[in-house]
Amino acid sequence: MQTLNVDLGARSYPIYIGSGLLQRVDLLVPHLPYKRAALISNETVFPLFGTRLLENLTRSGVETVPVILPDGESYKTWETLDRIFDALLLHALDRKSTLIALGGGVIGDLAGFAAATYQRGVPFIQIPTTLLAQVDSSIGGKTAVNHARGKNMIGAFYQPKVVLADTDALKALPQRELCAGLAEVIKYGLIRDAEFFSWLEVHLDNLLARDAVALTHAILRSCENKAAVVAADEREQGERALLNLGHTFGHAIETALGYGEWLHGEAVAVGMVMAAQLSCERGHCTEADLRRTIAILERAGLPIRAPAIAAERMLELMQLDKKNDSGKIRLILLHRIGEAFVEPGVERTQLLEFLGRVNTP
Amino acid sequence: MQTLNVDLGARSYPIYIGSGLLQRVDLLVPHLPYKRAALISNETVFPLFGTRLLENLTRSGVETVPVILPDGESYKTWETLDRIFDALLLHALDRKSTLIALGGGVIGDLAGFAAATYQRGVPFIQIPTTLLAQVDSSIGGKTAVNHARGKNMIGAFYQPKVVLADTDALKALPQRELCAGLAEVIKYGLIRDAEFFSWLEVHLDNLLARDAVALTHAILRSCENKAAVVAADEREQGERALLNLGHTFGHAIETALGYGEWLHGEAVAVGMVMAAQLSCERGHCTEADLRRTIAILERAGLPIRAPAIAAERMLELMQLDKKNDSGKIRLILLHRIGEAFVEPGVERTQLLEFLGRVNTP
Repeated sequence: MQTLNVDLGARSYPIYIGSGLLQRVDLLVPHLPYKRAALISNETVFPLFGTRLLENLTRSGVETVPVILPDGESYKTWETLDRIFDALLLHALDRKSTLIALGGGVIGDLAGFAAATYQRGVPFIQIPTTLLAQVDSSIGGKTAVNHARGKNMIGAFYQPKVVLADTDALKALPQRELCAGLAEVIKYGLIRDAEFFSWLEVHLDNLLARDAVALTHAILRSCENKAAVVAADEREQGERALLNLGHTFGHAIETALGYGEWLHGEAVAVGMVMAAQLSCERGHCTEADLRRTIAILERAGLPIRAPAIAAERMLELMQLDKKNDSGKIRLILLHRIGEAFVEPGVERTQLLEFLGRVNTP
Repeated sequence: MQTLNVDLGARSYPIYIGSGLLQRVDLLVPHLPYKRAALISNETVFPLFGTRLLENLTRSGVETVPVILPDGESYKTWETLDRIFDALLLHALDRKSTLIALGGGVIGDLAGFAAATYQRGVPFIQIPTTLLAQVDSSIGGKTAVNHARGKNMIGAFYQPKVVLADTDALKALPQRELCAGLAEVIKYGLIRDAEFFSWLEVHLDNLLARDAVALTHAILRSCENKAAVVAADEREQGERALLNLGHTFGHAIETALGYGEWLHGEAVAVGMVMAAQLSCERGHCTEADLRRTIAILERAGLPIRAPAIAAERMLELMQLDKKNDSGKIRLILLHRIGEAFVEPGVERTQLLEFLGRVNTP
């Protein structure tokens, strides 16, 4: 087991990474001082890991209410959140009860936002069961639900007390979701860790084969990179923006296609290709770096070509993206593999021309 | 004009109190660096003060979107919150736009929670137009919406950048609402300021006649008391609980009767009488202090007798109140006028007997 401490002053917390951690209730109990909890999961994950975890918690003296939600990004809405609130109130859980998220990013975002707002804030534990959640959404305190007019538009910054990332959970993951998680892993290499990018080029097949040692290293290194960025910039005022490489394009693609059509990691993969290509065209990075970026994403089984969406529609959706400050289009671009930067204002007409070219079949 | 600085470190902010402040856009503009805002108000308040404020903001170069909601506690729900989000997204307001709340406690709570969660947090300004909001809900950063199963169950702690409390706004207030606001003013005297309580006994008629000088003093003194408590205990771990004098009883009454039947301050007034009576019966305070408490609330035009609610129902609702820790019933009681304390666990059977006695007509 590897341990990483996320340093956020009074809100610091440990991330435990390795195999067999779902059985390690002893890692959770110190963070449950009031012995009351709600275990929030979905219909897919709960039967796999939730039943046993619930038993183990109960055996350790933690009175735990299961809250089992439907599975899928399309349920990341206020209506689902309200089902959580309803269950918590029905069981009279008070403000010292802990919410435990067991599932992927959707469950983490929902349970985290519920924890941030139930009775104005209750303690929160993350047990991510997808690669994407383990390397991305379980670190950094971002929680949210989607709105009909945009993704992750309603949310809060809220930190967990502890995170358990069990590589065994990834054995049950559909291949497509494993690949989507790898998109975010590769992102850390692209934005700030050239050495890790090279390691990924060498060990990608081990990761695709779900080798536990390779996965533990990739998760740890991803978490270290994200934790370092988040510790320096918890509220996303500066450096943290780099984590959004590929995301402004990606979110627009997800919204245009309808949530759930493409996986988040798939949209981000294409978004990263678009960012790399634009970086290249604007003279910021080399063709060789663009080719390496496309090659590793393709080997990871990820889409590398943008779907057919009208350029005007893409631009409109990109302008709605919340990372835009006061009307300008801000994008994360690449100087080279291992070094991303914030381009504060790409000109509309240039971007329209670019989108018209790459988003047409 | 009086100025009070609420000291919360990086989240400190000024409260301006006096007459004519609704015209003082110059007090707001320094807190609107990005010159984009949404003015959130209701159908009653907006025609009185909003139209002119909107004009003044626009004239000062602040592009402002009005969001006008229906009036009343029954609209303090997720559905209304979603109308705010919808308007903000429709006008593509980004995360540097400021939300300005113009109205009573309901508008402040809704707009504050919207500000806390829109794009994970945008700046927020409070312009409370009721006495209750000026002395209570505009200080302390509590924001929330109601849930079908309980009042203020979903919310966040979120501080404004600046608060304007204009005594002129109170001229338009129905007498019943002015009285309800006085319940919270009297509460500050009861819990921690005996001198202020005596001042209120002397000047109550001036306040009921809406004398601007008396109102300014009462608002300032209330805000000072609340600000001192909040500064010492922002997240309600200790001393801040004293602010809930009368509220556990009061919230149960509000829920039992249905939101909107009684005003919040009316329910709190009865709750304070109940708390004082229980304090007296348990030997914590004198009969004389109980009589002074009842007398001033009655003079302020507030109800002093509990409505007929079955004791079991009251107790059930009180147990749901979020100030209860891990199943115990915690109440705020009085040692004397000017000194409240936390009674951590009143016995159920004693409380049932008490409620059976006082809640029956």
